[in-house]
Amino acid sequence: MPVVKSVMKFSELGMRLAGETGINALMADLGEALAASAEPAPLMLGGGNPAHIPAMETVWEERMRAIVSDPAALRRTLAIYDPPRGNAGCLESLAGLLRNQFGWSVGPENIAVTPGGQTAFFQLFNLFAGRMQDGTKGRILFPLMPEYIGYADQSLERDTFTALKPRIEITAPHRFKYGIDFDHLRVTPDIRALCVSRPTNPSGNVITDAEMQRLAELAARHDIPLIIDNAYGWPFPGILFDEVAPLWTEHTIHVMSLSKFGIPGTRTAFVVGPPEVAAAVASMTAVTGLANGNFGQAIAGPLIASGEITRLSRDVIRPYYLAKRDKALAAIAEFFPETAPYSIHESGGAMFLWLWVRDSKRTSKEIYRALKKRGVLVVPGEYFFFGLDDQDWPHRHECLRLSFAMDDNVVREGIRIIANELFGS
Amino acid sequence: MPVVKSVMKFSELGMRLAGETGINALMADLGEALAASAEPAPLMLGGGNPAHIPAMETVWEERMRAIVSDPAALRRTLAIYDPPRGNAGCLESLAGLLRNQFGWSVGPENIAVTPGGQTAFFQLFNLFAGRMQDGTKGRILFPLMPEYIGYADQSLERDTFTALKPRIEITAPHRFKYGIDFDHLRVTPDIRALCVSRPTNPSGNVITDAEMQRLAELAARHDIPLIIDNAYGWPFPGILFDEVAPLWTEHTIHVMSLSKFGIPGTRTAFVVGPPEVAAAVASMTAVTGLANGNFGQAIAGPLIASGEITRLSRDVIRPYYLAKRDKALAAIAEFFPETAPYSIHESGGAMFLWLWVRDSKRTSKEIYRALKKRGVLVVPGEYFFFGLDDQDWPHRHECLRLSFAMDDNVVREGIRIIANELFGS
Repeated sequence: MPVVKSVMKFSELGMRLAGETGINALMADLGEALAASAEPAPLMLGGGNPAHIPAMETVWEERMRAIVSDPAALRRTLAIYDPPRGNAGCLESLAGLLRNQFGWSVGPENIAVTPGGQTAFFQLFNLFAGRMQDGTKGRILFPLMPEYIGYADQSLERDTFTALKPRIEITAPHRFKYGIDFDHLRVTPDIRALCVSRPTNPSGNVITDAEMQRLAELAARHDIPLIIDNAYGWPFPGILFDEVAPLWTEHTIHVMSLSKFGIPGTRTAFVVGPPEVAAAVASMTAVTGLANGNFGQAIAGPLIASGEITRLSRDVIRPYYLAKRDKALAAIAEFFPETAPYSIHESGGAMFLWLWVRDSKRTSKEIYRALKKRGVLVVPGEYFFFGLDDQDWPHRHECLRLSFAMDDNVVREGIRIIANELFGS
Repeated sequence: MPVVKSVMKFSELGMRLAGETGINALMADLGEALAASAEPAPLMLGGGNPAHIPAMETVWEERMRAIVSDPAALRRTLAIYDPPRGNAGCLESLAGLLRNQFGWSVGPENIAVTPGGQTAFFQLFNLFAGRMQDGTKGRILFPLMPEYIGYADQSLERDTFTALKPRIEITAPHRFKYGIDFDHLRVTPDIRALCVSRPTNPSGNVITDAEMQRLAELAARHDIPLIIDNAYGWPFPGILFDEVAPLWTEHTIHVMSLSKFGIPGTRTAFVVGPPEVAAAVASMTAVTGLANGNFGQAIAGPLIASGEITRLSRDVIRPYYLAKRDKALAAIAEFFPETAPYSIHESGGAMFLWLWVRDSKRTSKEIYRALKKRGVLVVPGEYFFFGLDDQDWPHRHECLRLSFAMDDNVVREGIRIIANELFGS
């Protein structure tokens, strides 16, 4: 048999998905920096892993012991395929929670489980956009950049995403907030869905209730869905520092995830929307993955059924991150000179500070590399601005994402070094 | 805000993936039949769930207790994202097993974890076929129909799959075996990969070593991959009743799954192939799902590291299914009249008998419906013949798939009723 050095030929999609996407290159670089057995270990302000909260770890251990001690539960969790839509009991429980605690008129027919929020968005984006049956091209519109980096490469066809620059409002000394630029928001016929995360990764922005209402009206008027990523938000894990109302209309699709509630290793999220959307998601899961992993639903199902999941979110998880955020902001105030040209996005939720280094001589990628040399890992902001026509917009190269989920001393020391690198302080 | 009854518009792909695929309709029908609280419950010979083997359930409980009792292991499994390629230790362990037990020259760079075998095939098919960079259309060739039903809807573009009818060899009274029809097998330039399952779901066929060798030579000559689905086969769960050799060349891509080893609820499979393929799969996982669920690797990792996984497959799982297969064949011999026009495919592996009702007046779908009324659920064979030019080939409508994974008395009683329905015996 001829031995040929194989250079296998991928499809166009394969070349693109499998290639060096920006996020892949960045993650590889971050991973290598972490793995390089430097002494001391780098200060990791670049990650997306949730914090390990002691009170929550007790909950996980209790739930796991309950499953292992019940042979029927263990068998159901490990050894039996659930329907592609998810565990029937878990779907009922979540529908009940949304009805009882929040007054939504939903049943299990409105819900489908996916193996994590990332997969939910992959499914939804390609369910709604790309080549349409009439031969036209459907697009997803992100009304507010910056947005979650993980969406950027998820469309199966090129040029499916389009996005809008934000309005930038200076809210206080060294503070700013993004707003949706409704004056420039056009829902052309090719737009098949709107999508926002709330709170937003990376900026910690929380789109206001008034903005959400206007987006929902636009969606209804054009009969397209408004997709809302609640990865950090409502109803769990509830890492929302501002008081805002959840929104439920016939055109909203919510994605809720268990990852930032604390169990990303189970890959479990819920799509909640019109029944035809939930059915489509279940069908896509059947075709692309047969079924979901059972563990997330087995662990969290009883917490959803009892409503405990929202109590833990409100009384344990939110205060934990709020305290960490306040410490991070205090470290910024301590180490960043009062006169330095920086601004922090108003932190309404999630687990990041979004630092705008104004009129910097260096791009955020250059700052990222300089900080990496000094043992501090952050994420340069460029990657979070995708789908924009104007890729040279200076603001795009002036921001850094800093996670405050790590140990307080790691966050504080990281911020001290960042201040020194940027302002010599 | 206008309240419009939403009929959301899906993309072409969305319409197809989310629509009523054959497999979806069938699964819904089977599910309803099972859920309809009939007394007595239907005899389920239609499922794909693996058996619950007591000795294996002990293993799962031990492994779960070990994870729950080790706070670091529990945190790693539940609360930390693994890299998209999979857990580094687990990848090393599997590479070691393949090197040490089987002499393959592989390292972790040859392996990527996926959330189940179904997702591995979704990724591989679309990585290799569909629109190519030069504008041509790449296709996947299945050299031997019938094949696994779950592939049928997995291509993102229409008409990506092509397939070949088998040669049918009568091997003994009431026995037959499919063979690859190499005289009609053409690897045209549009063929970008070959794919077989071994043993084959649904037929229990085991493609011979000689056939595999010829396929591997074809793949090498055309510099395309030969993708091999080991869901039921080698090295785990090892439900192989014939002695055959695993094949490793520069052009083979193996998919190995933990589902039929007993833990489908963890959604864990491994793609083993050239490094560029493993890297591409890892990248597709990052884009479409961020990371894999950790549980399957946490549970099975130590069994892979110690080699215990192949011992359990050989000494526990294989004999268990072999005994069930022999009982099912004995029931066929007992209840099916000696003179009846039926034939069973040689059962070389997996957990199904493939029944060919020769010259039947009814299609297998009609037989399926008649059996459902009598409380026996099977899978009609039509669905397993896809990608064929000749959709009216009579053989396509003459076969039924019967699972023998259920309790022996369920299987025996089901076969008794099938005999009565088909032959009045």
